[in-house]
Order: sequence, then C-alpha cells, then structure tokens
Amino acid sequence: LGKPVFTSDRFYDVPPVGVVMGLAWTSLGGASLYVETAALPADAKGRLLTTGQMGDVMKEGTSVCYTFAKLYISQLDSTNTFFQKNDLHMHIPEGATPKDGPSAGVTMVTSLVSLALNKPCRPDVTMTGEITLTGKVLRIGGVREKVIAAKRAGVTHVILPSDNQRDFDELPDYIKEGVMAHFASMYSDVYKVAFADELPEVPVPAP
Amino acid sequence: LGKPVFTSDRFYDVPPVGVVMGLAWTSLGGASLYVETAALPADAKGRLLTTGQMGDVMKEGTSVCYTFAKLYISQLDSTNTFFQKNDLHMHIPEGATPKDGPSAGVTMVTSLVSLALNKPCRPDVTMTGEITLTGKVLRIGGVREKVIAAKRAGVTHVILPSDNQRDFDELPDYIKEGVMAHFASMYSDVYKVAFADELPEVPVPAP
Amino acid sequence: LGKPVFTSDRFYDVPPVGVVMGLAWTSLGGASLYVETAALPADAKGRLLTTGQMGDVMKEGTSVCYTFAKLYISQLDSTNTFFQKNDLHMHIPEGATPKDGPSAGVTMVTSLVSLALNKPCRPDVTMTGEITLTGKVLRIGGVREKVIAAKRAGVTHVILPSDNQRDFDELPDYIKEGVMAHFASMYSDVYKVAFADELPEVPVPAP
Repeated sequence: LGKPVFTSDRFYDVPPVGVVMGLAWTSLGGASLYVETAALPADAKGRLLTTGQMGDVMKEGTSVCYTFAKLYISQLDSTNTFFQKNDLHMHIPEGATPKDGPSAGVTMVTSLVSLALNKPCRPDVTMTGEITLTGKVLRIGGVREKVIAAKRAGVTHVILPSDNQRDFDELPDYIKEGVMAHFASMYSDVYKVAFADELPEVPVPAP
Repeated sequence: LGKPVFTSDRFYDVPPVGVVMGLAWTSLGGASLYVETAALPADAKGRLLTTGQMGDVMKEGTSVCYTFAKLYISQLDSTNTFFQKNDLHMHIPEGATPKDGPSAGVTMVTSLVSLALNKPCRPDVTMTGEITLTGKVLRIGGVREKVIAAKRAGVTHVILPSDNQRDFDELPDYIKEGVMAHFASMYSDVYKVAFADELPEVPVPAP
Repeated sequence: LGKPVFTSDRFYDVPPVGVVMGLAWTSLGGASLYVETAALPADAKGRLLTTGQMGDVMKEGTSVCYTFAKLYISQLDSTNTFFQKNDLHMHIPEGATPKDGPSAGVTMVTSLVSLALNKPCRPDVTMTGEITLTGKVLRIGGVREKVIAAKRAGVTHVILPSDNQRDFDELPDYIKEGVMAHFASMYSDVYKVAFADELPEVPVPAP
C-alpha cells in the first residue's frame, strides 16, 4: 500500500569509491540509502550537481557537505587538487523516492572524501548525522529505526552522533546485539571508522 | 509536539574562527543559533553562498552583512584582501529548521569579520540586532526570550541594540542576574565586545 | 496589532554620504524611510545590488534611478568616473518590512548622487516623488500622511513633486506649520534643495 520506500536494503556488496551507505528514517521505519558521487574532469573550478529527488533541506545539505569536504581534504593533504579539477555529480538512488532531511550529512561527506582520496569506504560501515561547516556532527532522529535498518542490511558498524549516545544506550539488548556503535562529535571521528584498516569483529548473536 | 526547534543550546564550547553564537526568537521562545562561515580560496572577486533554510528576509540580510563587512574591514585595515581572495559559505545549523528575520545581522557580520581577521569571537559573548549598510544597529524583538536563551546556553555577555535598552532594563531581576548586557548603536560597539581581550566577570547569582 | 511598520522614525541624526531620508505611505499612515547606498570598488562596469524586501515596482524603480543618476552625474561632471569604478549596494532598512511603490525615486537618485559626489544630503531635508529616465518628477500619493511623518521625524524641509502642490496647499494650517515645502518638476529642483549650502529657517509654531 503506497509506493515502496527504499525497496533494496543493500545493493552494493562492496561499494566502489565514492559510494557510501547511510541510514534514513522514513514514515515506514528505518532504511539504508546510498550516496553515490561520480567525478567528471573539468577545466572549471568544480561544481556539484545533485539528483535523486532530494528535498530542499537535503539539497542545501549537499552544499554544506561539499564545502566542508573541500576544507577537510585541504587540511588532510594540501596538495590534493581533486575538487579543483573535477565537476561532481552526487546521486541518491532510488531516483523516484523523495528524500529529505539533514541526517545524510556525514554520508555525503564520506562519499566526497572517498572520491577525493580514491579510497573506498569500508563495506561493513554505515552512518548517520548532520554535519556543520566546521565538521561538527549534530544529533539526528530515529536512532532505533536506523539501527534496525543497519542490521537488516547486514552491516555491523554504525556511526552515530555523540549526542545520540544516550538514545543508543537505551535501546533494548536484542536490538543492540550484533552491531557496534561508534560515536562521532567531529567528522574526523567518522573518518577514522569509515576508512579504518581494521575494525573489531562484532560477535553475531546466537540465534 | 511538533518538531524540536534549535535542539542544541550550545554545541561549541570554544567556537572556531568564523563561528559566532547569536540569539533567535522562535514560536517556541528564545534560542541560541550559530552562524558559521567558511572560506574557500578563489581567483574570482569573492562570492557568498548561504545555506541553512534561511527565509527571504534572512537571505537578503546576508547580503547586507557581506557588503557591510567588506566596508568595515577595509576601514579597519585597508591592506586586508581576504574578501577579494576568498569565496565564502555561510551556514546556519540546524539545517532542517527554517529560520528568518533580520536580527541575526550583527552575528553574521561578526562571523565574517572573525574570518577576515582570523580572530575568534569571544566564547562568552552572544548577540542580536539588525544591521544597516552603514553599520547602524537596529532594534529587534524578543529581548526577554533571547536573554533567557543566552543564560540557558551559559553565556554571560549579551550584545543588544541600544534601542532595546529599555526592554532589557524592564526585565525582572531574576532574569537579568548572571548576564551582562552591552548596548550597541553602531557595529563598532559590537566589535569592541565580541573581540575584547578582557570583559568584566559577571557574578553568578546564588542559587 | 500586527507587526510594527517602520518603527524608527529617525535613526540618523546626520546621515552619512549615500544615505537619504525619504517618505513612504503605508497602510498605517505616513512613515520616514532611509535609502542607503554603499560603494564597493570593482574592476567591472559597475552593478547595482538591492536589498530590503522591495516589491517589484520598487526594484524596477532602483534600476530607473541608477540609469538616471549615471546620466545626471555625467552632465554635472563629465570627468566623474564613480559609477564606472564601483559596484553599488542599495538597501532600505528595516529588512523585515515589505516596501513597494515608485515614490522613493527621488530619494534613491539623491542617495546615488550623494555617493558619486561624496557629498552628504542635508539632514533637515526629506523627499518623495517618482522619477522618470529623463529626470521628470511625477505626482505621488499620500501627501498629508507623508508631511505628518516628516514632522514626526523632526525634518523641516520637504521636497514634493510640483504636481502635488495643490495637495499640499489644501492641507490645514496646523499640519503645514513648522514645515517648508519645496516643489520639484525636474530632478535638478530636488538637487538644489538636497545639497543646498543654506536653506531658510522654518519658524517653529508656538505650542
């Protein structure tokens, strides 16, 4: 009844560079979503095109993420000229599903950072959180639904804003089992998990 | 009931350069808000991008603040080429909350001035006031609610327009306790407080 | 009830160069308003940015005033390159109050001329009138309300379109007392009063 919302829980086993799984909160519950960004070499200074039925808040959010990603990369490696040399296209499948809200911020930044560094995000990591221009990670809603969606997608590491730690801690054990939460107050906390060489193995709960 | 408006009273302990706390007046009472501005080196003459679900009046306000900040900096230091050499992005978290009105003017100017001078605004200062192109600080509404919001955010110095002095003076003592008001008729009055080396300590009221 | 319209009758004692007091006619009566214009040095040919919640008629009006001011200055002093060398920003505080109509024309031109000549408009003068591209001053509405607003703002010289002379003459004496009207059919008539070295003293009525 009604059209399906985010029908595919997971359609990348190993997401390529520029693709990052995030978590959304919809009227039907939590859902995983992918942020995909592609680069097109360009003479100009670089622009960001966005598609995927994003609402106003989400569209503005892409612009905040774009500026922050530029600043973050220039701090990480001042010789990196990726953003100057490429036009970017950010898309959120599924193209027919309207999406909105600011909580894909950390996911969008990670997608851009992944492209700029030519380094894939870990496939066992998903994330949610609003981002500010200075890289602060802000509180979001729907922690319970999003953690359930992460588990449904078979992901074991979930990055959440530090200000949501209490929301997570208060979840019942049967929801928290099989997933490890990482709390981020700045984007650098997200980065450390998303691009980690190793992360602890999460014990799968006995059935 | 309804979605929370400006949920975070304070999410920077020590705001970095370009980030300034202001005071807003919402349908749910007063609230603190941050104006964040980031600089991106650019060849061009400099542009200002704005995000954060700003309404029409606030968007126009950013443009007034941008022009005034350029004029103010050129008076302060005619060799400062910051605004010629950078594109700017001004954002007001939280991205999903619609914001409007002209009273963030002095906060926006201070955010721009902070960036241009590479000098942080004092963390114990917050402010409200419309600004004109000539730097005049105009009267705003919601003084009571804004002073309460400033105290809730743990800030002790509040800059208000001179034309609001009476509104402040008439507040009951239990509201004025623990906060020092500074009245500004021109932006230079704001500047002196926001970037002061020292400000008087404000006695905390006995509980 | 409803939000206050043009709350400040007068917020410049001595307006700086580029700032001129005009008279508006609102649903709540007459009001004084300021047109402020600031100049930003620019390489380009010069552009005019406008802010202040102007309606469509007023926005178009700024463009008429801009063109006429260029023509007028080039006649006055063909060596004046002000308009070629600067980008301009014209603002009408208070930013939250919608404004419209063509009657600020002479005020806008005077603001531009004041900047171009680096010469302040007299602080005891206010004005109203639509302007055409050739400098003709056209009839406006609300003479009674505007004269009352001028007096409330403490201004003694009011420039009105010649075609409104009858409206003024028919006002009761207690309104005309304490104010001197100057009638303009071309912009040069406005100029002579706005930038006059001397104007007659206006006898203040006995209380």
